[in-house]
Amino acid sequence: MITVPVELGARRYEIDIGRDLLGDPQAWLPWLAGEQVCIVSNPVVAEHYLPQVREALRGKILVEHLLPDGEQAKTLDSVAAIADTLLAAPCDANVTIVALGGGVVGDIAGFAAACYQRGVALIQAPTTLLAQVDSAVGGKTGVNHPLGKNMLGAFHQPRRVIADIGTLDTLPEREFRSALSEIVKYGVIADAELFGWLERNLDDLLARRPEALEHAVAASCRNKAAFVIDDERDRGRRALLNLGHTFGHALEAATGYGRWLHGEAVALGTVMAAELAARGGRLPKADAGRITALLDRCGLPVAPVAEPTTERMRRHMRVDKKVRDGQLRLILPAAIGHAELTTDYRTEDLDAVLDQFCTGATA
Amino acid sequence: MITVPVELGARRYEIDIGRDLLGDPQAWLPWLAGEQVCIVSNPVVAEHYLPQVREALRGKILVEHLLPDGEQAKTLDSVAAIADTLLAAPCDANVTIVALGGGVVGDIAGFAAACYQRGVALIQAPTTLLAQVDSAVGGKTGVNHPLGKNMLGAFHQPRRVIADIGTLDTLPEREFRSALSEIVKYGVIADAELFGWLERNLDDLLARRPEALEHAVAASCRNKAAFVIDDERDRGRRALLNLGHTFGHALEAATGYGRWLHGEAVALGTVMAAELAARGGRLPKADAGRITALLDRCGLPVAPVAEPTTERMRRHMRVDKKVRDGQLRLILPAAIGHAELTTDYRTEDLDAVLDQFCTGATA
Repeated sequence: MITVPVELGARRYEIDIGRDLLGDPQAWLPWLAGEQVCIVSNPVVAEHYLPQVREALRGKILVEHLLPDGEQAKTLDSVAAIADTLLAAPCDANVTIVALGGGVVGDIAGFAAACYQRGVALIQAPTTLLAQVDSAVGGKTGVNHPLGKNMLGAFHQPRRVIADIGTLDTLPEREFRSALSEIVKYGVIADAELFGWLERNLDDLLARRPEALEHAVAASCRNKAAFVIDDERDRGRRALLNLGHTFGHALEAATGYGRWLHGEAVALGTVMAAELAARGGRLPKADAGRITALLDRCGLPVAPVAEPTTERMRRHMRVDKKVRDGQLRLILPAAIGHAELTTDYRTEDLDAVLDQFCTGATA
Repeated sequence: MITVPVELGARRYEIDIGRDLLGDPQAWLPWLAGEQVCIVSNPVVAEHYLPQVREALRGKILVEHLLPDGEQAKTLDSVAAIADTLLAAPCDANVTIVALGGGVVGDIAGFAAACYQRGVALIQAPTTLLAQVDSAVGGKTGVNHPLGKNMLGAFHQPRRVIADIGTLDTLPEREFRSALSEIVKYGVIADAELFGWLERNLDDLLARRPEALEHAVAASCRNKAAFVIDDERDRGRRALLNLGHTFGHALEAATGYGRWLHGEAVALGTVMAAELAARGGRLPKADAGRITALLDRCGLPVAPVAEPTTERMRRHMRVDKKVRDGQLRLILPAAIGHAELTTDYRTEDLDAVLDQFCTGATA
């Protein structure tokens, strides 16, 4: 097991990364606020892992709440439904909420923990690669609004993150590969060593060898933690974590959510960001090539697509959260291991990149 | 004008207390985060004060959202409706939300500001005495759940509180008097000087003389600020602000919300807490007498009531947020100017107090 600290002063916590953690009482008991525990999960995850968590927490007052599976559960109504369960129990301000599942479960359960009685204890137990390397760490929680993703939420740090890499054994291949784009992202924006490790060890990672998984998840968490410590409330440097995400969110939104997996959209978005940076002379063309090649080896989309059209992409990029007073800021790499949030790019280069990668004509 | 600071480090802010503030651009402009301002109010308050606020904020990009009047608006749906308005505008993460109204508007708009894009700037502009001396200061926001008041919420400090005492001129007499119980509360729990001032100057305050209002609001805010600085997240000493509230909430809940005004219930609750403290020998009987006499002069309820019954009261007190692992903690005064959160009281004394003040038989 590897333990990665997140040094946030009074809100300091640690991330445990290893096998067979979910069923181990010692992984859980030190982090409970009191006797009451509410496990929030979804039916798919619960079927696989709820029994062992129940066993590990035996003797505690357990309440369980299952959310529907999928991104469409990320609504304020789901938060209200968790509150119904907590109040019906009734759970008091000393309850610990456990988010057992992927990013959707973590975001909703985390937001419920942030709001219930103005904030109760939270343990994140991510069961997908994407959640283990990204969403379960850093305290961002929230739900969607019909007009935008994650538009309602809170910063609410967990007391512990329990990342059991054994849960990755059952993860569908497409979902597993999709999450690799976030690991590649850490390499591009901040960690040339991780990027090089990925280039050398990708086959072991794709084969899901435990040592490779542990290394990749821990390195990702260390990178994420460093950004979160620097900028907990996402007012500055933390924005770099969104490399490829402005393009990626627009790709997802413009094609209707569900067609692209988040990480797939981020992969192509990262390629587009690298291409824009290379066009402006900010990033050496050889580095742009390495980024594209690595994402391609992950089995992620790196080639131009017919949908969405350039016009739809442009419209969706305008409502991004990184728009400030009308200006769209983008994260552009300057080297493997370094990126910047900037408005310093030519509009004609951005247009050219959109034309290059979104090839469909407007209807 | 009196300005009271709330020293919360990075979240430091000040409370301005005076006349003719709402229409003064200088009261507003330094505290806006950007060009977009969303004013949240209700139809009653908006009719009186929205035009002057609009005028003061002329030149800004203004969005307005009116909530229904009354406590029943304190739902998650109201927060969602504010998010609809913000996203339809669209307002970005640089928007400033202004809560123009009483405690209900402040709680809902404050919670919306806490959640929108995981937190945007907030200015509290309380227009009732209760909001000016209590709810607009300290960052507590939230909405109700059918099974409990303020069960979903957040701590979200404003960037400024603008308490225009001119708005108190139009406040209905019953509502004005109801808020006095919170001012008396500060005297009982922490400020013997304020308590003495109230005994000497209550007639001026009841006549709503500006100097008396300014003094009482500022003294209350200073007391509230001291508690908030000590214990921003309400894990310890801040609980003392709930003197009379455990009894009071139960009185409100057991009779159905709306029959008692909050401050009226708190007044009788304070008398009950004083009586319980006196029975246990914790509080001199003479001090209990002064508390009851002052609340009586405010025109607030201090005498036994037929409803709710003792049984209903007891049931409602059990679900209080101050219950920890099954034990009901109460705030009991030990002198004028000093109170404690304690489980150190005799159950038979509590029963006797409930019998004494809730005289109706169980149906």
